[in-house]
Amino acid sequence: MKDYDVFHAGDVVLQNGSVLTEATVAYATYGKLNKARDNVIVYPTFFCGNHADNEWLIGEDRALDPRRYFIVVPNLVGNGFSASPSNSVASPGPRFPFVSIYDNVTLQHRLLTEKFEARRVALAVGWSMGAQQAFQWGALYPDYVERIAPFCGSARTSRHNFVFLEGVKAALRADQTFEGGAYRRSPIEGLKAVGRVYAGWGFSQAFYRSECDLKELGFPNLESFIVGFWEALFTRMDANDLLSMLATWQAADISANATYAGDFARALRGVKARAVVMPCTTDLYFPPEDSAIEVGLMPNAELKVIPSIWGHSAGALGLNKTDAAFIDRAITGLLAE
Amino acid sequence: MKDYDVFHAGDVVLQNGSVLTEATVAYATYGKLNKARDNVIVYPTFFCGNHADNEWLIGEDRALDPRRYFIVVPNLVGNGFSASPSNSVASPGPRFPFVSIYDNVTLQHRLLTEKFEARRVALAVGWSMGAQQAFQWGALYPDYVERIAPFCGSARTSRHNFVFLEGVKAALRADQTFEGGAYRRSPIEGLKAVGRVYAGWGFSQAFYRSECDLKELGFPNLESFIVGFWEALFTRMDANDLLSMLATWQAADISANATYAGDFARALRGVKARAVVMPCTTDLYFPPEDSAIEVGLMPNAELKVIPSIWGHSAGALGLNKTDAAFIDRAITGLLAE
Repeated sequence: MKDYDVFHAGDVVLQNGSVLTEATVAYATYGKLNKARDNVIVYPTFFCGNHADNEWLIGEDRALDPRRYFIVVPNLVGNGFSASPSNSVASPGPRFPFVSIYDNVTLQHRLLTEKFEARRVALAVGWSMGAQQAFQWGALYPDYVERIAPFCGSARTSRHNFVFLEGVKAALRADQTFEGGAYRRSPIEGLKAVGRVYAGWGFSQAFYRSECDLKELGFPNLESFIVGFWEALFTRMDANDLLSMLATWQAADISANATYAGDFARALRGVKARAVVMPCTTDLYFPPEDSAIEVGLMPNAELKVIPSIWGHSAGALGLNKTDAAFIDRAITGLLAE
Repeated sequence: MKDYDVFHAGDVVLQNGSVLTEATVAYATYGKLNKARDNVIVYPTFFCGNHADNEWLIGEDRALDPRRYFIVVPNLVGNGFSASPSNSVASPGPRFPFVSIYDNVTLQHRLLTEKFEARRVALAVGWSMGAQQAFQWGALYPDYVERIAPFCGSARTSRHNFVFLEGVKAALRADQTFEGGAYRRSPIEGLKAVGRVYAGWGFSQAFYRSECDLKELGFPNLESFIVGFWEALFTRMDANDLLSMLATWQAADISANATYAGDFARALRGVKARAVVMPCTTDLYFPPEDSAIEVGLMPNAELKVIPSIWGHSAGALGLNKTDAAFIDRAITGLLAE
């Protein structure tokens, strides 16, 4: 059963001047748009995630309550559901153009305004690359977006985060069967290597020290966790899709557009929305220090650090109930304001 | 000019029962053994390092003063100078046996006792895997070693550190030209990928945030730092040597021997030597939390955390003068006791 719809945006001129032919945004919705058309929550997906992976935060007992809000979950371009190297007819595989966070958010804005004629966005929220899109929503549409709640993400990819992702890309490309993106069969060894590289980054040192992979996630040993969790996560992905999303991530910067002309501080000051920014204490690539710098420049933002040893995965998939509850409570508070 | 000597240990039965045929330990010495034969400092090398890479900490104006001490720098087995996959006649390449930290230290002990007839070790000191060997010296020879000063290392490789190294190995092995170790030409793409993966780990988030790669190390941009520092570090290595050292590192545990039978706490309690243990605040794979646990179990140890944003590289090659001075001062104090 297809649990999502597709917004056909036509041929879209991207930020870098190239054209995404027959651009599509796959999206899922939860709840109903009210008569005032102002109960919209936009909740973009993350790296290698899709709309279904966002559902853990949506529910009648949650802040993202579909009885009250019209929740729209647009898939990130490149994730295999929205326009992607793996499904593009006009520019498949390595010919797929570079798509920025800005391009994603302007496409999502068209979805909300053209398809749903939404009058306001009550909240833009997301995890990781989803958080980067939430920040971009706030900076691009300050009079349209009332609140943002980015968690375990950043308004601009840090240099260290960029370097970490260079390692991920290099591990994939070291597999010669990748053939510069022209592979006939999936470069499985490269994708497994991506999983193994990611494994050290996706949770914290303390997570592994406390053996949460065994005690909380139920894997029988460390190797089965690496294989069953990390390798499995990436071997199901298309390699060019992966690289498309990584390029988007590495270039993420809410000020990299005509509105802000690269002035990062001005872009942060431009976020009028009430904001709750939630890094995790032990996140290895979106460390709370970066979030604190961002919040310090935002006029209407509060920093709420998730106290957790789950690292970046404090915000992942509701894996950890305590962290999920922390995030849910913070969003409840934000929506009540 | 050959700046080192070689200790020929004969055929050595290793801890796991296999035989290292014609085992050798390449070593450099600085200063002279005194008449009492008790002024020895043993200063083992680190992952991918060699004796020359240890020289930054040795000098007449330093704690490791060759006018006063006889400083012996044994090369880690597998590093291409001591017995290694790349130089072994009997068991070259992937046939090279697994060599533990214990095997390294017992070989080094033979070097000191058989070759030099040293009566005591005044200090065992080292960085990273060198620190792991210093810990092992303290635990194996408690009545022979007077002091240890491990910096940016651990007495046992943590689960997280193990996972990080899985990523490094996978990046190398994803290169099909590696051919399970039977490569005819060096698997350059895999070795470059190792460098790119390592780049995110070897310094801290704050190091990159502060642009120390540009401002302190003088690279013109981030990509040139990754290529010129990180890729260059690993493309000069033999891939099987790299994997041999990684296997040693991943299995490092001062209690993994008959003396301690895997009882890690007992092994730490067994270190009688006065110890100064120096992690760096921002080390991503030897975090200070692990060192604090170790010091808490050692009877005669002090924790001195290097306050630095240089991460693991706070202890590398004297790259950062402030951190190098911190380490030197701490060792001076320890030697004065």
